[in-house]
Amino acid sequence: MGSPGALACWGLLDYKTEKYVMTRNWRVGALQRLLQLGVVVYVVGWALIVKKGYQEQDLDPQISVITKLKGVSVTQIKELGNRLWDVADFVKPAQGENVFFLVTNFLVTPEQVQGRCPEHPSIPLANCWAHEDCPEGETGTHSHGIKTGQCVVFNGTHRTCEIRGWCPVESSTVPVKPLLVQAKNFTLFIKNTVTFSKFNFSKSNTLETWDNTYFKRCRYDPLSSPFCPVFRIGDLVAAAGGDFEDLALLGGSVGIRVLWDCDLDAGGSDCRPHYSFQLQERSYNFRTATHWWEASGVEARSLLKLYGIRFDILVTGRAGKFGIIPTTITLGTGAAWLGVITFFCDLLLLYVDGESHFYWTTKYEEVSGGPAPPLGAATLRGCWPQSRPAVLICRQRPRR
Amino acid sequence: MGSPGALACWGLLDYKTEKYVMTRNWRVGALQRLLQLGVVVYVVGWALIVKKGYQEQDLDPQISVITKLKGVSVTQIKELGNRLWDVADFVKPAQGENVFFLVTNFLVTPEQVQGRCPEHPSIPLANCWAHEDCPEGETGTHSHGIKTGQCVVFNGTHRTCEIRGWCPVESSTVPVKPLLVQAKNFTLFIKNTVTFSKFNFSKSNTLETWDNTYFKRCRYDPLSSPFCPVFRIGDLVAAAGGDFEDLALLGGSVGIRVLWDCDLDAGGSDCRPHYSFQLQERSYNFRTATHWWEASGVEARSLLKLYGIRFDILVTGRAGKFGIIPTTITLGTGAAWLGVITFFCDLLLLYVDGESHFYWTTKYEEVSGGPAPPLGAATLRGCWPQSRPAVLICRQRPRR
Amino acid sequence: MGSPGALACWGLLDYKTEKYVMTRNWRVGALQRLLQLGVVVYVVGWALIVKKGYQEQDLDPQISVITKLKGVSVTQIKELGNRLWDVADFVKPAQGENVFFLVTNFLVTPEQVQGRCPEHPSIPLANCWAHEDCPEGETGTHSHGIKTGQCVVFNGTHRTCEIRGWCPVESSTVPVKPLLVQAKNFTLFIKNTVTFSKFNFSKSNTLETWDNTYFKRCRYDPLSSPFCPVFRIGDLVAAAGGDFEDLALLGGSVGIRVLWDCDLDAGGSDCRPHYSFQLQERSYNFRTATHWWEASGVEARSLLKLYGIRFDILVTGRAGKFGIIPTTITLGTGAAWLGVITFFCDLLLLYVDGESHFYWTTKYEEVSGGPAPPLGAATLRGCWPQSRPAVLICRQRPRR
Repeated sequence: MGSPGALACWGLLDYKTEKYVMTRNWRVGALQRLLQLGVVVYVVGWALIVKKGYQEQDLDPQISVITKLKGVSVTQIKELGNRLWDVADFVKPAQGENVFFLVTNFLVTPEQVQGRCPEHPSIPLANCWAHEDCPEGETGTHSHGIKTGQCVVFNGTHRTCEIRGWCPVESSTVPVKPLLVQAKNFTLFIKNTVTFSKFNFSKSNTLETWDNTYFKRCRYDPLSSPFCPVFRIGDLVAAAGGDFEDLALLGGSVGIRVLWDCDLDAGGSDCRPHYSFQLQERSYNFRTATHWWEASGVEARSLLKLYGIRFDILVTGRAGKFGIIPTTITLGTGAAWLGVITFFCDLLLLYVDGESHFYWTTKYEEVSGGPAPPLGAATLRGCWPQSRPAVLICRQRPRR
Repeated sequence: MGSPGALACWGLLDYKTEKYVMTRNWRVGALQRLLQLGVVVYVVGWALIVKKGYQEQDLDPQISVITKLKGVSVTQIKELGNRLWDVADFVKPAQGENVFFLVTNFLVTPEQVQGRCPEHPSIPLANCWAHEDCPEGETGTHSHGIKTGQCVVFNGTHRTCEIRGWCPVESSTVPVKPLLVQAKNFTLFIKNTVTFSKFNFSKSNTLETWDNTYFKRCRYDPLSSPFCPVFRIGDLVAAAGGDFEDLALLGGSVGIRVLWDCDLDAGGSDCRPHYSFQLQERSYNFRTATHWWEASGVEARSLLKLYGIRFDILVTGRAGKFGIIPTTITLGTGAAWLGVITFFCDLLLLYVDGESHFYWTTKYEEVSGGPAPPLGAATLRGCWPQSRPAVLICRQRPRR
Repeated sequence: MGSPGALACWGLLDYKTEKYVMTRNWRVGALQRLLQLGVVVYVVGWALIVKKGYQEQDLDPQISVITKLKGVSVTQIKELGNRLWDVADFVKPAQGENVFFLVTNFLVTPEQVQGRCPEHPSIPLANCWAHEDCPEGETGTHSHGIKTGQCVVFNGTHRTCEIRGWCPVESSTVPVKPLLVQAKNFTLFIKNTVTFSKFNFSKSNTLETWDNTYFKRCRYDPLSSPFCPVFRIGDLVAAAGGDFEDLALLGGSVGIRVLWDCDLDAGGSDCRPHYSFQLQERSYNFRTATHWWEASGVEARSLLKLYGIRFDILVTGRAGKFGIIPTTITLGTGAAWLGVITFFCDLLLLYVDGESHFYWTTKYEEVSGGPAPPLGAATLRGCWPQSRPAVLICRQRPRR
C-alpha cells in the first residue's frame, strides 16, 4: 500500500480522521440520536420538502391585465330624460386597465357656463346677511368659485354670497336610489398574464381554452368554476363583503386580488390564479365634465359627479424552481446543526452526567508543551480539588 | 508560559484541539481532498463569484414610466370626410402612462341620440317574426338597448326587435383595411426611472445624455443602438412577433419588457435597461363616446369603437450589492459541507475499506463508565463475532 | 448501567465523543475564545438582532392607491375669457389613480376644423420660397399635417407650406406666466393600502382615525405631522427640490415615494408609511382635444396643449415576521463558522506555534494499516528530518 510520492510526502494524502472516545453512556447516546433524528426530519421533511427549501424563488413577476366589462343599463333622470347607458358611458377609463371605475350613480349639472351666481348654502362661509360677509376674491378649498363681494338670494330660501365660476352651481343633493342598479348583472372579464423573467416562464389565466366559447358562457364561482375569469359584478361585490345597493348608491372601492403560486418543478401545469376580493372603500366619487361650445360661441360644460365602484385588480405571484444554491444552503445549515448537537451532548456528558469527571479525563488527553514545566497543571491543581488532580496524575503517567 | 489566573483556572484558555488518527489510507485521503476541492470550487467559484453569493439583492424597485408618442396620420372615412389624426386624437390616455392605447382603426357611429330603433340583426335574440318575439323590457348582455316589444324592419332586409337606446345602433361591420396604417412610422419615446430604495440608488434610461439631441435622432435597434429609448412602432410590433397590418386592423396588445439587472459593486455604470417585446393579444378593441348637446338641446354622442394596439410597459429590476450577511451565509454553508465530507469519508473508512475493523479500533477508543462493570462490552461481544472481540481485547489491555 | 438490546448491540446508543488533546497553549486558546466571541456577537448581535435575521420577509405587497385633489383656481385667458377651473377641469384622469396630472398651464387652440392652412414656421422644412419646396403628401414626425404642395403666406410674415389637417395650426408660443398658479394651494389626499399576502396582513395609511375630521384639517409636515396623508401641492413640490413657479410654467413630474417597513412581530402597530419626494422631470406636457359637431355639422375640436405637474405615487413595502427557517439558517451558519475558527486555530498550533512539532505528534496519532509494512513511515521519513522521526518512534512504541 504505497502512496504517490510528493503529495504523500507532504502528508496530503494521509487521511486523518478524528479520534473518538466511545462511551457506553446510552443516555446521552440516545439523546444524541434523538436530536439528530429531529434535525434530519426538520431539514429534510420541513425545510426541504414542505417549505420547498430546494427552490429558488421569483417573487416579482411582470404583470399585464386587460379587463372588459359588458352590459347595458337604463335609467330615468328628469334632466336627461329616459336615458340608456352602455359601456361607452359608464366605464372610465374605457381602455380596460387594471384600475377602472364603473359608474353606478351620478349627480348631473347639465348646462354650466362661466358666470356669476349664488354659492350653494352647504359650502362653509357661503351664507351671508350683507355684502360685508362676502369679501371679494375670497375662495375656499370646497367653494365653487371666487366671491364677487355680493350677497344674493339662493333660490328664494337662503341668502348666500355670489361667486364667479361655473353657473349654476352643483346642487349637493345625493340621489336616494342608485340610478344604474342594473350594473349588478354586468360581467367583468379579466385577462391576466404573469411572466417570471428569472425563469423565463409566462402564464395567462385564459390560455387553456380547449373550448373558445367557454369564456363567453362561464361565470366565476369559488366552488364550481374557480378558474373562470368572468365575474358577475353582483357576486363579486358580495364576495368582497359589500352590499351592492349601498355601494351603487354612494360608490366604493373593491380590490380583486389575483394570487399566482407556481411550482415550476411540476411543469407549471398547476400554476393557476386564485382570486379573492376585498372591500377597500365604502364611499367613492369624483367629478368630471364634458365641455363644448354652444351655438352662441359660449363654452359650456355638463358637470357629472360620478358615484360608482372602483375596481383595483391587484396581482401578486411567486414562482419556485429547483436551484442548487438554495438546496446546498438548506442542507449545509442542517449539517451545521448536527455539529451543534454534538457540542450540546458533550456539555451534558462533561458537566451534567454523573461520571462527568471520568469522561473529562478520557475525552481530554492532557499535554503540556513538552519541555515547559507543567505550570498549567499547578495553577489548575487549585480548581477541582477532588477531581482534577486524579486526572492529571492518571494522564501524566504515560509520558513519564 | 503562564496563563492569566481565573480564566486559565477554569481551563477556558486551554486550547483543546481534536485528536486525529492519521491513517496511511491514501485512497480515502485522495477522495477526501478531491471532495474538499470540489466544495471549495463550488462555493468560491460558483456560489460566490458566478452567482454573486456575496451580494444582497433588491428585487422590488420603485418604477416610474413616462411615454410620448409622435406622428401624424391621415385617413379617409366617408362619415367624417378626409380627416387627419394627430397625437391628440389617437393616443388614449394622452398623459403618457405606462399603459396606453394607440388607435389604428375605428368604427364610428356619428350622431347617436336616445330614441327607438331596430336592434342590429347580429345580436342574439334580435331577429323576430312578430311582436311576441320581442318581450318588452328584455335586454341581454350584448344588446344595444331595452326591447320595446315591437318587431320592426331593419333597413329593408331583416325584421328585428325595436329597442330603446342610443339610435341608430352601431353597425357591426369591421373595416377591411386599417384606417391609420401610417401609425407604423410613429415613434414611441419611453422614459423609465428605477429606484432601488434598499440601496438608495436611482437610474434612468435617458440620463446619459452627453448629446441632448441624441434622443431626437436615435432609433432603438437591438444591435446597433440597444440603449436608445425611442422605438419605431413598426419595428416594435415586428420584434414582438406580430404583423403590423393585422394588429392595426383588429387591434392587439404588445408588452414592452424593460429589465434592469444592476451590479452596484461595479458602481452601477453597467446598470442599463434591456428591452424585449411580446405579443400579448391578437385582438383588442373598446368603445368610447364623445357627448354634446345639439342646438335643439338634445344630448347626442358619437360612438367610437376603437381598434388599436395597447402597449403595456412592464419593468422589472434587480440590483445586487455586497453584503456581509449573504457572504457569511454562503461561506458558512460551504464550511458545513466540508464537515459532511469528513463524515462521509469516515463512513467509507469504517464500513467499506478493507481494513475497516482495524480503523474502527483505532478511531474509537473504548471506555466504559469507570467503576461500572464493562457490561456494554459483554452485550457487544455477541455482535460482530469475528471482529469486535479482537477490538475489545486490544482496547481493554491498556486499562488492565 | 445496561443498554436496550438491539440498538446498543449495533452500537447505536454508544455515545461517541471526539477525543481532544488539551494543550496548555493559552495564546492560541485566547485567540480561539476571542474569535468565538466575535462570531457569537456577530451572529446574535448583528445578523440576528440588528438585521432581524430571524424574520422571513415579504417584499412584494399588493398596493392600492386612491388620490383626491381639492381646490379651485381662476385664470384670465383672452380666448376663453375670465375662466374658473375646478377639479373637474384640471385633474386628468379624474378617477384618482396613483399616476395623475395636475394642469397648471396650457396653450389652447380653440376652434380647429379639418381644412387647409399654412404650416407653422417653427416646424422643420415648413418654410418655403416656392411650391417646389413643398412636395405634396410629405409629412414629418413633428408636422401638423400633410403638405398640399402649395407655398403660402403665414400671417403676413413668413411663407410656409400649406398643409391639410386641423386648422388653424397651434401657435408655438409658450405662456410666460403659469395660468393656474393658485394650484400651489391645492391639497392632495392620498389613501394607500398595502397588503402582505404572505403574512395575510393589511394596513392603510388612513385607518387610525380616532377623529374622523382629522384628515380634513391636517396637513403633512415631515416634523410635526409625518403621518397625515394630506399634502399641500406647494410644500410637496418644494420638498421634492423643485420651484413651483417653474414647474407650473413648463410642467414637470414629481415622484411621491411611500415606503412601508413593517415589523409584524411588533404587531404591526409601528407599521407606518414614510413619505419622500423626488423631482423626476423639469418639463412635461401633452396634447388633448375635445371634439364636437358644430351646428353646420362640421366636426370641430379645441386643442389643448397641457403643461402641468405629473404625480407618480410609488409605493414599496417590506414586512418581516419571525420564521423558523431563516432563524435556523442564520444560527446554523454561525455554528459552521465556529468550525472554521477551530480549523484556523489548529493551523496556527500546527504550523506557526513554536512547539508545533510537538503538538503535531500529540494531535495526530499515527497508525499504518495494521499488517502492512510501515511504508508510509518510510516515505515520510525523508520529509521533516529533525522532527517526524521522533514522532514516529514515540508513536510506534505503544504498538510494539
